[in-house]
Amino acid sequence: MAQLLRASTWGLFPWRSYCSQKAKGGVCVNLMQMDQILELNLEDFSVVVEPGVTRKALNTHLRDSGLWFPVDPGADASLCGMAATAASGTNAVRYGTMRENVLNLEVVLPDGRLLHTAGPGRHFRKSAAGYNLTGLFVGSEGTLGLITATTLRLHPAPEATVAATCAFPSVQAAVDSTVHILQAAVPVARIEFLDEVMMDACNRYSKLNCSVAPTLFLEFHGSQQALEEQLQRTEEIVQQNGASDFSWAKEAEERSQLWAARHNAWYAALALRPGCKGYSTDVCVPISRLPEIVVQTKEDLNASGLKGSIVGHVGDGNFHCILLVNPDDAEELGRVKAFAEQLGRRALALHGTCTGEHGIGLGKRQLLQEEVGAVGVETMRQLKAVLDPRGLMNPGKVL
Amino acid sequence: MAQLLRASTWGLFPWRSYCSQKAKGGVCVNLMQMDQILELNLEDFSVVVEPGVTRKALNTHLRDSGLWFPVDPGADASLCGMAATAASGTNAVRYGTMRENVLNLEVVLPDGRLLHTAGPGRHFRKSAAGYNLTGLFVGSEGTLGLITATTLRLHPAPEATVAATCAFPSVQAAVDSTVHILQAAVPVARIEFLDEVMMDACNRYSKLNCSVAPTLFLEFHGSQQALEEQLQRTEEIVQQNGASDFSWAKEAEERSQLWAARHNAWYAALALRPGCKGYSTDVCVPISRLPEIVVQTKEDLNASGLKGSIVGHVGDGNFHCILLVNPDDAEELGRVKAFAEQLGRRALALHGTCTGEHGIGLGKRQLLQEEVGAVGVETMRQLKAVLDPRGLMNPGKVL
Ligand SMILES: Cc1cc2nc3c(=O)[nH]c(=O)nc-3n(C[C@H](O)[C@H](O)[C@H](O)COP(=O)(O)OP(=O)(O)OC[C@H]3O[C@@H](n4cnc5c(N)ncnc54)[C@H](O)[C@@H]3O)c2cc1C
Ligand SMILES: Cc1cc2nc3c(=O)[nH]c(=O)nc-3n(C[C@H](O)[C@H](O)[C@H](O)COP(=O)(O)OP(=O)(O)OC[C@H]3O[C@@H](n4cnc5c(N)ncnc54)[C@H](O)[C@@H]3O)c2cc1C
Repeated sequence: MAQLLRASTWGLFPWRSYCSQKAKGGVCVNLMQMDQILELNLEDFSVVVEPGVTRKALNTHLRDSGLWFPVDPGADASLCGMAATAASGTNAVRYGTMRENVLNLEVVLPDGRLLHTAGPGRHFRKSAAGYNLTGLFVGSEGTLGLITATTLRLHPAPEATVAATCAFPSVQAAVDSTVHILQAAVPVARIEFLDEVMMDACNRYSKLNCSVAPTLFLEFHGSQQALEEQLQRTEEIVQQNGASDFSWAKEAEERSQLWAARHNAWYAALALRPGCKGYSTDVCVPISRLPEIVVQTKEDLNASGLKGSIVGHVGDGNFHCILLVNPDDAEELGRVKAFAEQLGRRALALHGTCTGEHGIGLGKRQLLQEEVGAVGVETMRQLKAVLDPRGLMNPGKVL
Repeated sequence: MAQLLRASTWGLFPWRSYCSQKAKGGVCVNLMQMDQILELNLEDFSVVVEPGVTRKALNTHLRDSGLWFPVDPGADASLCGMAATAASGTNAVRYGTMRENVLNLEVVLPDGRLLHTAGPGRHFRKSAAGYNLTGLFVGSEGTLGLITATTLRLHPAPEATVAATCAFPSVQAAVDSTVHILQAAVPVARIEFLDEVMMDACNRYSKLNCSVAPTLFLEFHGSQQALEEQLQRTEEIVQQNGASDFSWAKEAEERSQLWAARHNAWYAALALRPGCKGYSTDVCVPISRLPEIVVQTKEDLNASGLKGSIVGHVGDGNFHCILLVNPDDAEELGRVKAFAEQLGRRALALHGTCTGEHGIGLGKRQLLQEEVGAVGVETMRQLKAVLDPRGLMNPGKVL
């Protein structure tokens, strides 16, 4: 049995994974020292990276090349781990998730054979050649094989960038604005929602001075001229939804500060209750159902007596409720899990998914069944059984 | 055994498929009368269609809704067939292929069970819930099950549209321009290459009056202001590459005429040699290798004595060589096949694929092996064996 993990982000949901590992034993494979960028094809907008290469390391390497890799889960995760979990994050609304940005994978299969999901060395933009093996392995959470290299699609670095924030009188107004911005086809690069608890936490942790109100953080990419148009349209929309202020940050430093605060939202939330652990939900619903589920979740949270904040990639219909919990308090942990499960079921009832980007892991196996139905789960089990007949890879995860 | 086909596009490569069907017998399932648009979610940018609904029928239905479905292979194919073949076409450079635009599939599995690849009724923008079954069935060419409904992602209709054409002194100059336009991050919606043989054929068949020279057909989508900027940048680039004229068509009628001509390129090519059949190649390579492979293919074509033209979705690195052949002339058919196979191998040598969008079918099974390697093909065979253990669905195709 091989449980794959990477030390640096191991702390995310430690107690659940750790318990199961203690109970079952197994082998832990650490690939961090395979940390080479194997091939950079600037003209083809592609790069091949080993498992030890993180998102930030890649973008540092690409600096001055005119290209970048946009998928950005905030955390400085390994790119192969991001492929394994079908990660996405703040830029997905414009650039897609890992699903749209992985071109090829090198995988060590459970029996030791080496698979190149799109064929050795291939890095084309599209193909209709046989079954989409790349797509099957992206998001398989280490249950089908070990990813030893990932070929990624790069994008031209934006010519200019503007970040903006605006505060709203209500959660509903902020989320409605998101829906309207998408419907107006503004090619927004990032659109993130933070509720007032989250804003308060970020103000404290990241020394911001923002209104403590439901807020959108936005980013626009394009030429100077295109940006002005995008900003103007967005400003009109948010004002129609009662936004109290709309402020831009054109300077790189100011923008970095804003996004650093957004990326540190997890730690800012943890700091609200020192000594606690965080437990993150991850539902994603069709855009039209987003206002109702966020508003309802907010009410449930207030009623539950639990401490938590809401932050989300609302442009994709995806948001996280970061619940703060004392891991030694079994009763509280139980309530947190029940809250998360109820939220998952609410998303399912609205034609959504229980996980927009974090994956199933151990905790959402029951919800997966409810989400894809019996035939869906049976089909997944058939795939697992044929590709890993001895059940060696991350046993018990996902299915 | 079930061979799936749809009468309307059955004429594409008739003799190959037909021979194999005659030899093996089998059941032919016609789904054309399942032709309902089952669900339209305007706010969520999604729609559910049955197999009898074609691309044009859907876009006619969407007229005045502010939304459209951009994937456009020219032919008025069924949308489920397009999902089955991972089709793409002229708009993929901007909007992606079927792979990026199918959200869910309803599939009758070989044993009769009904699978919803993303779960019943689901139509979210992204998910990390278990294995990507949708991705596995898109492009499976009817070998894993019968698609009885497809949920598609819709896009906001562009506010304004401009089409443009420009003629070049050489194939190299036209293809170089394509690479430069992409590198400059101009969000071009369509960028199609037609060689001088193709232009001549289009002039005759579609009553155009264009220069008989290597030509790019382009289309830009956006706000009026954004379009002006895109046009200006593109014009600069093509002029640097020696384009002799760059003309725009803002009026809907003029644009339609241009794209009708492009979409009729197949029939225009056939008309060059009455009584013949067409045989289309479909390679796709990394963008940087596109100039050399197109130039080389052009030279080979001239040297071969075969009659053919080149047309392609060059923004994806994908182009077709439409070869004209007398189907009763076995020797000529042999030369055509040899030419296509050699071109496929050249694409493979340049890290490309033997099929960007048409699929493997019967004709490219050997090339598939060379493309993905032994482990890739074995893995695909394992998937086929577990999902269709009795080999009922399109036996002999793809693998
Ligand atoms: C503060 C914080 C914020 C985050 N925000 C987001 C967000 O906004 N969006 C988002 O999508 N995610 C988010 N994440 C999750 C993050 O994206 C994941 O942790 C990441 O995708 C996984 O990469 P990793 O290197 O951390 O993998 P690990 O945590 O080491 O592994 C994750 C899973 O992938 C498997 N795996 C890892 N590497 C391989 C490999 N080489 N081959 C096969 N299987 C492998 C593991 O077995 C495990 O099942 C966040 C995480 C943190 C800590
Ligand atoms: C003139 C012309 C130009 C074209 N240009 C392009 C182009 O630019 N780009 C491009 O990508 N394609 C192009 N094509 C191909 C076209 O996209 C395909 O024909 C189309 O994708 C397949 O859809 P169809 O309805 O014609 O399917 P069919 O031809 O009926 O079937 C194609 C394959 O899919 C399977 N299939 C069909 N329906 C189902 C179903 N419901 N369930 C399971 N399997 C099914 C069939 O078994 C078969 O293997 C062109 C075709 C023509 C005629």
